[in-house]
Amino acid sequence: MKVNLDRVIKDIETLATFTATPGNGVTRSSYSYEDKLAKEYLKSEMVKAGLNVWEDGFSTLFGRREGTHPEAPVVLIGSHYDSVVNGGAFDGVAGTVAALEILRVFHENNIENEYPIEIIAMNAEEGETFGPSTGVSNSRALVGTLTNKELDTVKNRQGLTKREAMREYGLIPDLESAKRKKGTIKNFIELHIEQGPVLDNEKIDVGLVEYLPGIGRYKVKFHGKVADSTAPMETRKDALLAASNFAIAVNQIIKSLGPGVTGAVGEMEISPNSHQFVPDYVQAKVEIRTFDEKVLQNINLYDRLLAELKAIQEETNVEAELIEMARIGYPNPTPPSIMLKENVEIMENICKNLGYKYTIINNGTGHDAMIMPDLAPTNLIYVPSKGGISHHPDEWTDYEDLKKGIDVMLHLVLEICK
Amino acid sequence: MKVNLDRVIKDIETLATFTATPGNGVTRSSYSYEDKLAKEYLKSEMVKAGLNVWEDGFSTLFGRREGTHPEAPVVLIGSHYDSVVNGGAFDGVAGTVAALEILRVFHENNIENEYPIEIIAMNAEEGETFGPSTGVSNSRALVGTLTNKELDTVKNRQGLTKREAMREYGLIPDLESAKRKKGTIKNFIELHIEQGPVLDNEKIDVGLVEYLPGIGRYKVKFHGKVADSTAPMETRKDALLAASNFAIAVNQIIKSLGPGVTGAVGEMEISPNSHQFVPDYVQAKVEIRTFDEKVLQNINLYDRLLAELKAIQEETNVEAELIEMARIGYPNPTPPSIMLKENVEIMENICKNLGYKYTIINNGTGHDAMIMPDLAPTNLIYVPSKGGISHHPDEWTDYEDLKKGIDVMLHLVLEICK
Repeated sequence: MKVNLDRVIKDIETLATFTATPGNGVTRSSYSYEDKLAKEYLKSEMVKAGLNVWEDGFSTLFGRREGTHPEAPVVLIGSHYDSVVNGGAFDGVAGTVAALEILRVFHENNIENEYPIEIIAMNAEEGETFGPSTGVSNSRALVGTLTNKELDTVKNRQGLTKREAMREYGLIPDLESAKRKKGTIKNFIELHIEQGPVLDNEKIDVGLVEYLPGIGRYKVKFHGKVADSTAPMETRKDALLAASNFAIAVNQIIKSLGPGVTGAVGEMEISPNSHQFVPDYVQAKVEIRTFDEKVLQNINLYDRLLAELKAIQEETNVEAELIEMARIGYPNPTPPSIMLKENVEIMENICKNLGYKYTIINNGTGHDAMIMPDLAPTNLIYVPSKGGISHHPDEWTDYEDLKKGIDVMLHLVLEICK
Repeated sequence: MKVNLDRVIKDIETLATFTATPGNGVTRSSYSYEDKLAKEYLKSEMVKAGLNVWEDGFSTLFGRREGTHPEAPVVLIGSHYDSVVNGGAFDGVAGTVAALEILRVFHENNIENEYPIEIIAMNAEEGETFGPSTGVSNSRALVGTLTNKELDTVKNRQGLTKREAMREYGLIPDLESAKRKKGTIKNFIELHIEQGPVLDNEKIDVGLVEYLPGIGRYKVKFHGKVADSTAPMETRKDALLAASNFAIAVNQIIKSLGPGVTGAVGEMEISPNSHQFVPDYVQAKVEIRTFDEKVLQNINLYDRLLAELKAIQEETNVEAELIEMARIGYPNPTPPSIMLKENVEIMENICKNLGYKYTIINNGTGHDAMIMPDLAPTNLIYVPSKGGISHHPDEWTDYEDLKKGIDVMLHLVLEICK
């Protein structure tokens, strides 16, 4: 009973050919021609693995291996198969192929599983096709937090709304029928490339995630007035002075909330950005991460930031717009997504038994595994990303490293399905 | 007795051909081959205008029209003839040619002048060939503030020091002999393009300068440590937080000094400048302008900024380097350069008599007219710059506008020389 790495390599190399930008990385946008080709390939491989295959109205592909207890909750394994523009061959695909290979191993070894196992290959995980607030779309459809409003407002590069793009692709998106009921899924397990440098730098084989920090991103546009460096101080509307005040306010708020949250203004675009002029415009971006579910429960951070901006406006005469970037409809950063601890412990033992070097790693965000804990106990396994590079044609994971991650996931699935 | 605009146009167009970058603006670096060609042209035109021509050890060209009182102090008129890389045809040249044309008018009309008149065509006004602290070099030589240290330390693109470049060009720079004595110059008068949009935007023919605000520029390099957005707050070295604190500190210091000074951080280069990371590096630039000679006399601004940076370092763990950019050896911004008020009033009357629209304009910096008040009562006349564009191939002043500026200058010279 062994993972066949040649099959995995063939899957990854084949899926990488379904790109709109040959020679310049993988570009497989949601609801594109390349997306269809990838899905057809995955379907045919699922059928070969003896799975019962179907697709929901959002282009999420399922393949079911029945259990000896067909009524038992399902063990759901997989990831996504869409990509950013000029991305790599591993982001999403690594986990989709890992699940496929595990079900092949079950199939060819006639392994008996009490719980049904389903591979899930999701679409629209990347927030690129329809914008940064639109990612993890298909897991949100499963969980039930995707909205008709989003389907009818966000648009792709061709100007089509998500619903229009889906219809053109041949889908009939129905939010109700896509939802999965709580209790029907025993576990969701995803393997993903780290998209960061920690495992690669420290030569660690496998990363086990205990939680993904919650996240909130805000954009603030400061509208001042350009003026020469000789402009009297009292006439100025200095957008950079306002943005500087805001950076300090964010720092003070975050520190006042204790160790369960971090955050800063990490980015400013300044105009005209010359020492000779008072800046008329700054766009600042804030990223906030949460580690404690409760830390933001009694505070509306959006309103708190708004209040700070109002005070800054009174002091500097610079108007500010506060825009929530990370998620639609959340006044606050999301809470951390907690993974199933007992499975993490099982995987620690698996790593020890297999002689794989592992670590607990709680970095990262924006995975379907961030969304799924609302529906089912979830686990996330990281494999190394060379140099931490991702969303880039140079994205790379050594196949031997990927195999180790699949091995750990296979043994976990064996353990929890029997 | 009339300004001949055809001659002026020929001068400007001819001088524009002495460029190292034909087809891509005027590039006439100091002590270059093109610089020599320009000087030869100017010399021959000065000789044609009956002037006694000589050159000092710094490649400043003089042409003297004797006065009926040869021992009387001289009226010095002119500007510079060097340019930035890929600059325009008017910056410097407009004023040099204006002075040349005025002396042609005196010559062809046999106008009697009691005071001697000298045209001065300076080199090395632009701080481009040898770096931003090295401009207005030849006026500093006249005034006596240019130093041997500067000649032996600053270097051009070929790696030659200023002295080496001058020697290669055929000069023997001698600081003592280049100095002019106080009292030997009755007035220095310069015409220059505005290099700003005010006159062009408001359709004003002539700008009369009452003073040039003093200036100080500082660069601050903040060295923090890059970290993920999940890094605990107490471990961070956030370079942007430090720079934001500094922007606020600069604002508070400047406001505390009253209306005689303005200043701000107008520019920040941030690295990596992504909301996902705590910035490890910010380079901020401050520009301070002074309007009152006394405002900075009792405060060492450099030390004051250093003290602020030290306090910021203690709070943020970010190290800062403070670098003085604008001038060598000045701990403080320079005081404002005050122009001769009585000549401004004479020019106001000239404009009224000629029907030219004028305004008092106190913008700008970095002209030889900023340096010369230490040696002689000085005046500066601006002509419009199309769109405020300068130091660029698109730099342009309508010839009719230039003629009006020359007319005003001619009548001023007539008035003060008789």
